[in-house]
Amino acid sequence: MSVSDKTRSLLNPGGGCPAGYGRPKDDSVKEKPVKSGSGSTNEQEGINLMVETNGLSYGDYLQLDKILTAQTCQSEIHGELVHDEHLFIVIHQAYELWFKQVIFEIDSIRKIFQQDIIEEALMLEVNKRLQRVVMIAKHLADQVLILETMTPLDFMDFRDHLSTASGFQSLQFRLIENKLGVKSEHRVRYNRSNYRDVYKEKEKELEQLMKSEEDPSLFDLIERWLMRTPGTNVNDDFCFSKSYQDAINSILEESLKDIENESNPKVREVLLNSYKKKKEQYSSIFDQEKHDSLIARGERRLSFQALHGALMISLYREEPIFHLPHQVLQSLMDIDSLITKWRYNHVMLVQRMLGSSQIGTGGSSGYQYLRSTLSERYKVFLDLFNLSTFLIPRQFLPPLTKEVTKIMAGYLYTPVQR
Amino acid sequence: MSVSDKTRSLLNPGGGCPAGYGRPKDDSVKEKPVKSGSGSTNEQEGINLMVETNGLSYGDYLQLDKILTAQTCQSEIHGELVHDEHLFIVIHQAYELWFKQVIFEIDSIRKIFQQDIIEEALMLEVNKRLQRVVMIAKHLADQVLILETMTPLDFMDFRDHLSTASGFQSLQFRLIENKLGVKSEHRVRYNRSNYRDVYKEKEKELEQLMKSEEDPSLFDLIERWLMRTPGTNVNDDFCFSKSYQDAINSILEESLKDIENESNPKVREVLLNSYKKKKEQYSSIFDQEKHDSLIARGERRLSFQALHGALMISLYREEPIFHLPHQVLQSLMDIDSLITKWRYNHVMLVQRMLGSSQIGTGGSSGYQYLRSTLSERYKVFLDLFNLSTFLIPRQFLPPLTKEVTKIMAGYLYTPVQR
Amino acid sequence: MSVSDKTRSLLNPGGGCPAGYGRPKDDSVKEKPVKSGSGSTNEQEGINLMVETNGLSYGDYLQLDKILTAQTCQSEIHGELVHDEHLFIVIHQAYELWFKQVIFEIDSIRKIFQQDIIEEALMLEVNKRLQRVVMIAKHLADQVLILETMTPLDFMDFRDHLSTASGFQSLQFRLIENKLGVKSEHRVRYNRSNYRDVYKEKEKELEQLMKSEEDPSLFDLIERWLMRTPGTNVNDDFCFSKSYQDAINSILEESLKDIENESNPKVREVLLNSYKKKKEQYSSIFDQEKHDSLIARGERRLSFQALHGALMISLYREEPIFHLPHQVLQSLMDIDSLITKWRYNHVMLVQRMLGSSQIGTGGSSGYQYLRSTLSERYKVFLDLFNLSTFLIPRQFLPPLTKEVTKIMAGYLYTPVQR
Amino acid sequence: MSVSDKTRSLLNPGGGCPAGYGRPKDDSVKEKPVKSGSGSTNEQEGINLMVETNGLSYGDYLQLDKILTAQTCQSEIHGELVHDEHLFIVIHQAYELWFKQVIFEIDSIRKIFQQDIIEEALMLEVNKRLQRVVMIAKHLADQVLILETMTPLDFMDFRDHLSTASGFQSLQFRLIENKLGVKSEHRVRYNRSNYRDVYKEKEKELEQLMKSEEDPSLFDLIERWLMRTPGTNVNDDFCFSKSYQDAINSILEESLKDIENESNPKVREVLLNSYKKKKEQYSSIFDQEKHDSLIARGERRLSFQALHGALMISLYREEPIFHLPHQVLQSLMDIDSLITKWRYNHVMLVQRMLGSSQIGTGGSSGYQYLRSTLSERYKVFLDLFNLSTFLIPRQFLPPLTKEVTKIMAGYLYTPVQR
Repeated sequence: MSVSDKTRSLLNPGGGCPAGYGRPKDDSVKEKPVKSGSGSTNEQEGINLMVETNGLSYGDYLQLDKILTAQTCQSEIHGELVHDEHLFIVIHQAYELWFKQVIFEIDSIRKIFQQDIIEEALMLEVNKRLQRVVMIAKHLADQVLILETMTPLDFMDFRDHLSTASGFQSLQFRLIENKLGVKSEHRVRYNRSNYRDVYKEKEKELEQLMKSEEDPSLFDLIERWLMRTPGTNVNDDFCFSKSYQDAINSILEESLKDIENESNPKVREVLLNSYKKKKEQYSSIFDQEKHDSLIARGERRLSFQALHGALMISLYREEPIFHLPHQVLQSLMDIDSLITKWRYNHVMLVQRMLGSSQIGTGGSSGYQYLRSTLSERYKVFLDLFNLSTFLIPRQFLPPLTKEVTKIMAGYLYTPVQR
Repeated sequence: MSVSDKTRSLLNPGGGCPAGYGRPKDDSVKEKPVKSGSGSTNEQEGINLMVETNGLSYGDYLQLDKILTAQTCQSEIHGELVHDEHLFIVIHQAYELWFKQVIFEIDSIRKIFQQDIIEEALMLEVNKRLQRVVMIAKHLADQVLILETMTPLDFMDFRDHLSTASGFQSLQFRLIENKLGVKSEHRVRYNRSNYRDVYKEKEKELEQLMKSEEDPSLFDLIERWLMRTPGTNVNDDFCFSKSYQDAINSILEESLKDIENESNPKVREVLLNSYKKKKEQYSSIFDQEKHDSLIARGERRLSFQALHGALMISLYREEPIFHLPHQVLQSLMDIDSLITKWRYNHVMLVQRMLGSSQIGTGGSSGYQYLRSTLSERYKVFLDLFNLSTFLIPRQFLPPLTKEVTKIMAGYLYTPVQR
Repeated sequence: MSVSDKTRSLLNPGGGCPAGYGRPKDDSVKEKPVKSGSGSTNEQEGINLMVETNGLSYGDYLQLDKILTAQTCQSEIHGELVHDEHLFIVIHQAYELWFKQVIFEIDSIRKIFQQDIIEEALMLEVNKRLQRVVMIAKHLADQVLILETMTPLDFMDFRDHLSTASGFQSLQFRLIENKLGVKSEHRVRYNRSNYRDVYKEKEKELEQLMKSEEDPSLFDLIERWLMRTPGTNVNDDFCFSKSYQDAINSILEESLKDIENESNPKVREVLLNSYKKKKEQYSSIFDQEKHDSLIARGERRLSFQALHGALMISLYREEPIFHLPHQVLQSLMDIDSLITKWRYNHVMLVQRMLGSSQIGTGGSSGYQYLRSTLSERYKVFLDLFNLSTFLIPRQFLPPLTKEVTKIMAGYLYTPVQR
Repeated sequence: MSVSDKTRSLLNPGGGCPAGYGRPKDDSVKEKPVKSGSGSTNEQEGINLMVETNGLSYGDYLQLDKILTAQTCQSEIHGELVHDEHLFIVIHQAYELWFKQVIFEIDSIRKIFQQDIIEEALMLEVNKRLQRVVMIAKHLADQVLILETMTPLDFMDFRDHLSTASGFQSLQFRLIENKLGVKSEHRVRYNRSNYRDVYKEKEKELEQLMKSEEDPSLFDLIERWLMRTPGTNVNDDFCFSKSYQDAINSILEESLKDIENESNPKVREVLLNSYKKKKEQYSSIFDQEKHDSLIARGERRLSFQALHGALMISLYREEPIFHLPHQVLQSLMDIDSLITKWRYNHVMLVQRMLGSSQIGTGGSSGYQYLRSTLSERYKVFLDLFNLSTFLIPRQFLPPLTKEVTKIMAGYLYTPVQR
C-alpha cells in the first residue's frame, strides 16, 4: 500500500528540493530504483526514486513537445532562413502565452464578481489576481523592447510571408479587451471595417468573440458591485451623495463670498471663472441628467450610482471595509494604464519597422490606426482616473454615522465559509 | 481679503493644470499681472498669475540650487576631467536621495507600530508605504545597470581621488539596515574592524548610528505586533498553537502507519527518513527549547510566540482581519529579497570594476567581503521566508471557532478615529 | 616623501577594496594611525589608514550636506506634514539629478560632433554615451511608477503649496529638448503663451534657455555629419542616390509589367493603387523639391543630403565604416522613443492625480496640453523612424565599387591620435 | 500571372499596415474578394484581400493550436483545480520559449566563430545578437517576480503533482550552460549525482546533452578568436605582452623607490605589502607557469595567449579594429552577469516557496544546492571580469607602432563579400 494522498504533502521530501520533486506513485514503478541502485547511498537513491519513478517529467508536464516544435520560419520554407524571423515568432508566442494567463485571471475574477454576494474572504485573492495581471502587463510592455532589436531591413526580409504580425490582431487580445470591457461602439474603425471581420470565416473564433461581447465584462461586474457600496443607499441614515453634496455646496458658498470680497477686479474675474467651472464639474456628479448626457457622449462610463460608490471608497478608504475595495480600484487603473502604455510602445515599434508613411493616397495607414487606439475610448476604467476631479480635502469630509459604520463592519463580521 | 485657505483646494485652477500650479498668495504680489497683462486674454493671465505671483518656483521648491551644484569631479580639480566621474557622482547622489526616502517611509511605519494599539484604519497606509519601499528597492537594484556602462579603465582614471565609492559604505545605508533590523552581531567583519569604525571621528554620524542600533527596529516592532495576533493567546477558546500541533500530529501518525505498510524496504527507508526529518522540523516550532536554541545559533530570529502569529496569519489569511497583515508580511519579504538582490547586483559590479583579485597575501579583498554580505545573516525577515517549511495543506487546517472569529471581527469593528 | 602620483593607481590597495578606498595623502595625516594602531594587526591598520587619513570622505565627495538637506516639505511649514510630499520632492530631485547627467552626456557628444573631422577612434565612446542616455531615459520612464503610489487625495493635501510639479516644467528638461533639437516652432503652445515665459523674470535661466536654442543642437550636428557620409558625394565613382534611384526604378518598372498582366480587374486596381503610392513615396527622397515641401510642412526634418546619408548607413551597415554610425542612429531613435514613452507615462500619472477635467469653459486643460506633446512634433529624429518606408530588399541593393570601399576603409586607417 | 516574388516587398501594402499583412498568393485564392466585395470601396477591399486570401493566418503562423492547448493543470485532473497552477505552467513555458531563442542566437554566433576567418562585416551582427541575449536574460530575471505572487500555500496545493518545477532542471537550460561553456567538472554535484542522470532514460535528450558538451562552446570559440588578436603575435614588430610587461615593470620599480623613501615605518610596511601583492598579481599574467597553475585550480579559464588578446582589446579599445570586439567582450560579461542574477532571483523564490529547511538529516537541501550554483564556478567568462585587476592607467600604455596599426587597419580593409 502506498502513502495516502492526504498526507503526501507533509512528507514530501520536496520540502528540501529545488522545487517539488514528486514521489513514487505506485508499486510497479517503485521497483525500478531497487534494481539499479545496488551500491548507491541513500541520498542517491532518494534522487533516483524521484527521477525514475514519477510518471510525469518536467518536459511532459509542460508539454514541451508542443511548445518547442511550434517555431517554423516561413523564410526558411520559402527559400533562405532570415535570422530575425525566429525572434519574431518566439516573442509573439510568448505574448500569446501570457494573454492566455491574463484571460485565465480575468475570467476567475469575473466568476467571483458574478456572485450576488461577494464573500469578504475572497477580496484578498481578487486583489492578488489583479495585481498579477498588473505585473504581467508591465512585463509585456517591457517585452516590446526586445523586438526593437530587429531592424526594419531584417523585418522586410521576411514580412512578405506573414499575414499579420501584431499581438493586437490576435483573437486573445480582442478577448482581453472585451472581457475587460472595451465596448464595440468605442472601437476605432480600421478602414471602415469592423474588428470582427478578421474572424468572419472562422466560426469557432467568431463565436468566442461574440460571446465575450455578450457576457458581462469585468467593467459591468465592477459597476454592479460598486452600486452596492454600503453608505450609498439613499434610505440609510447616512447617505453619501447627500452628505457629500452638502459639503461641496458649503465650500462653494464660502468661496463665492471670498471672491466677492476680492478687491482686484482682474483677480476676481479669474477666480470667478474658476469657481464657475468647478461648480459645473461638481454638478455633473450629483445631477443624473448631466451625468447621463456625459455617458451618451462617451465621456463617462459608470452608472450614476456606481460612480458614487467609487467616490465613497476613495474618500473613506481608511475604513477597514474599504481597504481591499480601494486596492481593487487602484489595480484596475494600473491595468488600464499599463495596457495603454503597451499600446504606445507597440505604436513606436511599428513606426520604426514600417515608417509612418506620410505620403499616401487611399486608406489610413496602419500606423495612424494604431495611434488612434491610444485615445481615451480604449480606457475601460476612465471614470476612476477622473475621480480626482471630484475630491475634496480631507478636512471637509462628512463624518460617517455610528449606524453606517456598524453596518459596514457587519460585512466583515460574517465568518469565512470553509 | 484673499481667498480663504480652507476652500483653496476646491477652487484651485490646478485641477486642470499639469500638476498643481498655485494661486496668488497675498495682495502685494497679486498686483503684478495687472500691470503687465494689459491687452492679454484671460487664459494668458491665468497662467501669468500663477507663474509670476507665487513666491515658490519649481526650482526653489526643490532647492535645485543645492541639488544641481553638488557635482564636483575630483578628476577635474586634480588635473583633467574624467568623463565617467560625473555619472559616478550623480548615481551615488541618486542612491542617497532614495535612501533618505526609504528611511522616511520606514521611520513613519515604525512610528505607527510603536503604538500599543494599532488602529485597523492605518493598515492600508502601512502596506502602501511598504509597497513603496519595495518599488524603490527594485528601482535601485536596476539602477546598478547604468553604472555598469562605466568601464574599469575609466574607473581607474579617477578612483584615486575617492575615499570610497559604494552606497554600502554610506551612513544612510547603515541606518536602513539597522532600522530594518540587521543586528550588529550578524554583521560580517571586514578585516576584523567594526562597521562603526568608519564614523569614529564623526560624532554626529556616530550618534545617529548608535541610536539606530538602540531604537526598536522595524523587526522588533513587527515581532511585538505578531505576538498580539488574535487567536494565538493560549487562554482563548481557540488556541492556534495547540490546534495546529494536534493537526500535525494526526497527519504524522497517519503517515507513519502508511510507511509501516510499505512493502518495499528501500522505499520504506527513504520515506521513514523523510518522516523523521519532517517530525523534527515541526517540533522546532512547538518546542520552545528547540526554538530558542535555533535563535542562539542565529538560524531563527522571531520569538516563539511571534512565529506562531506569523504562521497563523499565513494560514488563515482569508480572514478579513488578516488581509492586510498578510500583505504586510509579503511586503516585508519583498523588501528583504530586493535588498539582497541589490547587494548581489552590486557585487557583480565591483567584480567587473576591480576584479576579484584571486592572488593576494594580506586581508580579505573587498569583493570577498561583499560576497559574504549576501549570506542569510543579512536577511532580516528570514523566518518569514522559512514559514513555508511549516505549512500544512489547506484541508487539514483546524477550523476557527465562532468565538474567535467574533473576537477577530471586533478588531475591525472599532470606528475609524478622525 | 610620499608615493608618486604617477604610480599610485597601480599600488592602490583599492584593487581589493569594495570600491576604491584611497591612500594616505600627506605625512601630517599619516601620523594618526600610528598612534592609535599600537597593538593592531597590519590588516586593521590598512583599513584605518584609508579611513582616517584621506581628506575626502564619501559624504564630502558627494556633498551630501547639500543633497540631504534639500527636502523641505511645504505642508510641514504651512501646518501639518503631508506624508506623501516627501516622496514628491525626492522623486523630482532624482529627476533633476539625472537630467543633469543627460545634459552632461549630450553636451559631451555635441562637442565631439562639432569637430570638422570626427576621429573614428571616438565613435565607440560616442555610442557608449548615447547608450547610457538610453538607459537613463528608460530608468526615468520607469520611475514614474513610484509616484503612482501617491493617491490623488494625498496629492490634494499638499499641492496648494506648490507652484508647479512636473519635471516637464523644469529648466533642465527644456534644455534637454533644445539640445536634442526640439524646435521652438514645433512646440505646442500652452494657453497661447510661449514656453519661455515661465522664465521671463529669471535672467540667468532665460539666458541658458536662449543659448540652448541658438547653439547647434545634436540634431543639427548629426545632420551635418550625415551629409559627409562617404559614398553620398555625387562626384564619386559610386554615387548612392543615383545607384539607389536606378535600383528602385527597375523594381517599379518590373512591378508595373506584372500588374498589367494581372487578369482580375479588382486585384489589378488594388495593386495599381499600391504601385502609385509607392512610386510617390520614393520620389519624395529623390526629388529635392518634394523633399523640401515636406520639410516646410514639418513632416520631414533632415536635409536632402543628410537623409541620403542616413539611408546609405542603414542599407550598407555591414561595412565596417558604418558599424558604429549604424549603432549611433539606432541609439538616437531609442532616445527619442524613450523620451516619448516617458511623456506618455507622465500623462497617465497626471490624469490619475488631477483628472482629465472633461467639463470646462476657459483654457485647455493641462492634461490636454500634455497629451498634445505626444505628437510627432516632439520627435526629433522622426526621419530615422520613417527610413523604413524607403528600404528595398537586400538582394536589390546596388553593390559598392572597389573604389568607394577603398575610400571608406581609408577613414578607418588613420592611426588613433594619443 | 501573379506579381513576381522579386518585387513583392516594394509593392507590399504592408508598408502602411500594422505589421506586414500579406497579399494574394495565387489566382485561385484571389478570386474570393471579387465575389464578396461587390459594393465595397477600394479601401475595404484592400483589407479584405489581405485577410481573406492569404493562406497563413496569424494563428496558423504562430501555431497557436499547439501553444494554447498545452496548459493542462494536474490539480484539475487529480481532483480540484488549484488556481495558481495555471500561472506556474505558463511561466515555465514562457521560459522554455525564450530558452529556445537564446539557444538559436548562441548557435548562430557559434557558427560564425567556427569560421577560420571571421569577416569584419559580421561583427555588427554578432554583437547585435549577443545584446539580444542580454535583453532576454534581463527579461527572464525580471520574470521571476511574477511567480513570487504565488504564495507557498498555493504552491503546496499542487506541487505534489509535479516531478520538478524549475527552469534549472530543464534540458534547454543545461544546453545553454554547455553551449556557453559551463564545464562539466565545474558543476556542483547535487547529492552526489551527475547532472546528466536526470536524462539517463531519455536517449534523444541525453544525446543532445552529450553533443553540447563535446561541441566547441562559445567560450572555446571566443578563446580561439582572442588568440588571433592582432598585436599579440610575438613575431610582430609590436608585441603586446612584451611592451606591456615593460610598462608594468617600470611602474613597479618607480613605486618601490618611492616606498623606500617613505619615512613612516608603518606606512612603509603597508605600502610594501601592497607592492608585493600587486607584483605577484601581475606576474600571473606574464608567467605562463603561474597562469597554468591558476587554470589547474579552476581560478582562471582562458589560455595564456587568449587572456593577452582580451587585455589588449580592453586597453586599446579606441582602435577601430577593436570597437566591435570590445563591445563583444562587454556583452559576454553582461550575459554571464545576468544569468547569475537570474539564478539568484530563483534562489530567493525557492526559499520563499519551500523554506531553507535548516533542520535536516540526510542530503543537502535543494535550496543549499541552488545557492552553491551562484559560485564563481558557473561564471563562464570569469577572466573578463577579472581583467580589471591587470589594467594600468591610460598614460602608461605603450603606444602602438605604425606598422601594427597598418596591419590592424588591413583587417577592416577587406571589402564586404556579398
